[in-house]
Amino acid sequence: MARQSPQLEGRTVRVLVCTEHEHFVTKALPEARVSFEGLEGDRHAGLTRAADVRTPWFPKGTPIRNTRQLSLVSSEELAQVAEALGLPRVLAAWLGANLEVAGVPRLTHLPPGTRLFFPEDATLVVEGENEPCTGPGRVIEAHHPEALKVASRFVKAAWRRRGLVAWVERPGVIRAGDTVKVMLPRPVTYALPRP
Amino acid sequence: MARQSPQLEGRTVRVLVCTEHEHFVTKALPEARVSFEGLEGDRHAGLTRAADVRTPWFPKGTPIRNTRQLSLVSSEELAQVAEALGLPRVLAAWLGANLEVAGVPRLTHLPPGTRLFFPEDATLVVEGENEPCTGPGRVIEAHHPEALKVASRFVKAAWRRRGLVAWVERPGVIRAGDTVKVMLPRPVTYALPRP
Repeated sequence: MARQSPQLEGRTVRVLVCTEHEHFVTKALPEARVSFEGLEGDRHAGLTRAADVRTPWFPKGTPIRNTRQLSLVSSEELAQVAEALGLPRVLAAWLGANLEVAGVPRLTHLPPGTRLFFPEDATLVVEGENEPCTGPGRVIEAHHPEALKVASRFVKAAWRRRGLVAWVERPGVIRAGDTVKVMLPRPVTYALPRP
Repeated sequence: MARQSPQLEGRTVRVLVCTEHEHFVTKALPEARVSFEGLEGDRHAGLTRAADVRTPWFPKGTPIRNTRQLSLVSSEELAQVAEALGLPRVLAAWLGANLEVAGVPRLTHLPPGTRLFFPEDATLVVEGENEPCTGPGRVIEAHHPEALKVASRFVKAAWRRRGLVAWVERPGVIRAGDTVKVMLPRPVTYALPRP
């Protein structure tokens, strides 16, 4: 029987929501409620979602269980992305992130199944790395028209630093300033049989 | 972007359901439908479940997302459990399994996030190993009263061979005889920072 406990602790710097459907840029709120559907009011909330380029093994548009309800980024990794792009800063909102967390080393590397516990019951489970696409690069470029080819350089600059996607295991409230406790899953290895 | 494809293939030997609430023993059906709630009619189906001894980090009874919708066992591992117990056989039904699969080596060791694709759309995602408890041992003992202390020996005999629990990513139908294609997740490692 699993007898694990959290090994890391960080801080929730920002809670952000996108209520629009024309764009993905998020807006900071002091707090937000999470239900089994995700972050209330956010465009990515839902028990199901349509299969897309992230799940190429399903026909596009197929209804599948939504394990990409919230996206998370790290303050430290955002600073690294900004540095790689030669910019003073890259904001969580520009990437459409729902939570900005500080103090968890290499957030993007947390393995699938990692649990994130917030003080007011909310618990998220990491689905996996949120692989960077070109959308945020275009938003950054709109804010920094003087910077050269940011849109096309974003994917490389954000590789393995663009944060995570996660789903809600237990509903609750998440507030800016909340502590977040991080519990890694037990590592499991599987060796494919020799052909 | 993920460009994975299935690496293993097995066969669905049995589809089993338990519609009772007094016991967990399952009964074979020629086929069953899976929805986002799990296997239709099964006692473990549901979008949420109550936290229990498997999730000791939540207060008992807390509603949490149900990632233990279906349980799976392997024909080969069941034969090993029977051998360890000195019995001619151990049936999937006695363990309350929903699917018995053959031909996937070390099924119980498949890592969380492994996808199981069935021909008629149904897709399951592995939550993790289904760690053995004493319940099935008592059922086996009821069928083999001549065998010595099977109930108490079951947990050790079934360790790392008792199969998996999984949840439904894509609804569909699963039939006895169906091929099942297995796609492992990309391995992710995370090294904790030094204290």
